Amino acid sequence: MIQRFGPSPLSQTRGRSVVCNGIVTTVATAPTKHPTLYEQAREALAVIDRNLAEVGTDKSRVLTVMVYVSDIRDKPAFNRAWDEWVDRANLPMRACLGVELEGDDLVELVATAAVSESPASAA
Amino acid sequence: MIQRFGPSPLSQTRGRSVVCNGIVTTVATAPTKHPTLYEQAREALAVIDRNLAEVGTDKSRVLTVMVYVSDIRDKPAFNRAWDEWVDRANLPMRACLGVELEGDDLVELVATAAVSESPASAA
Amino acid sequence: MIQRFGPSPLSQTRGRSVVCNGIVTTVATAPTKHPTLYEQAREALAVIDRNLAEVGTDKSRVLTVMVYVSDIRDKPAFNRAWDEWVDRANLPMRACLGVELEGDDLVELVATAAVSESPASAA
Repeated sequence: MIQRFGPSPLSQTRGRSVVCNGIVTTVATAPTKHPTLYEQAREALAVIDRNLAEVGTDKSRVLTVMVYVSDIRDKPAFNRAWDEWVDRANLPMRACLGVELEGDDLVELVATAAVSESPASAA
Repeated sequence: MIQRFGPSPLSQTRGRSVVCNGIVTTVATAPTKHPTLYEQAREALAVIDRNLAEVGTDKSRVLTVMVYVSDIRDKPAFNRAWDEWVDRANLPMRACLGVELEGDDLVELVATAAVSESPASAA
Repeated sequence: MIQRFGPSPLSQTRGRSVVCNGIVTTVATAPTKHPTLYEQAREALAVIDRNLAEVGTDKSRVLTVMVYVSDIRDKPAFNRAWDEWVDRANLPMRACLGVELEGDDLVELVATAAVSESPASAA
């Protein structure tokens, strides 16, 4: 009933994705700590894409995305990466909040998505 | 399996609500940027009510509410609006966090609620 | 279809846990406002354990944990408590964010977990 994918590349004691009841929840930061939010946002969204593919779904089935940025005044830079990424025929609910992130992270994402009925096997 | 409601009044590239597996997730800020948290909280909770009605549910079926305020020291003002709003026979799980919000927003809400079995049609 | 557990020890107008579709969402802070994040993290995780037990599940079935700390630079202290607590055979998805918390709280947790098919009765 629960499928777990991980551990996270950041830590041996956290998963990167978990599936239950046909819904995945997954977390991402940018693997490269680029100096601009736009670049980190593009990378973090690409990690979301990879995490979704790993569990057998894609951005057309994303339900919600929580966006955490280290400087809310820079939100337009995130929006630019978002607008390039999002599936306009399948708009997720999104909220964007300014928080403190660790180290040089400028953005962290937590997304949920529906997973097809024949799930990928856990890895 | 997924019902999407939107786009958000704030952006053409975000939804305001999404329903999957009989649960809606919805986001709200205050449409009017009143100078007090109490006033914004009342308005944001009213938006939650409207978003819930749109998908065919109401506050008696709310599961969780994440409350993000721009000044945690002002939380009692949010609590006052909450206590006026909440269905005391059906208490949601709630967490309240101080974060940076955009522009003149003093509060942002993300709520989940159960939706009845015969859902409203998506709009 | 919805089971509510509460009210929270903090307030008569909030729940501490809610179950829907076989998934519980629960919130915790440390009952004792110890001066160190490590001590508060241990206590808050113990509250999560109690809340999970109350609804008939345990940490082996935790899906996600959102960790909110009042000082992100102190995250290693949270990680130490986490590593002592987590079920390494069943890693949850986790995200950790620096936010403003109320009063002397140094950490707040919001966790989701799968609940077995024969749920405990609501209290």
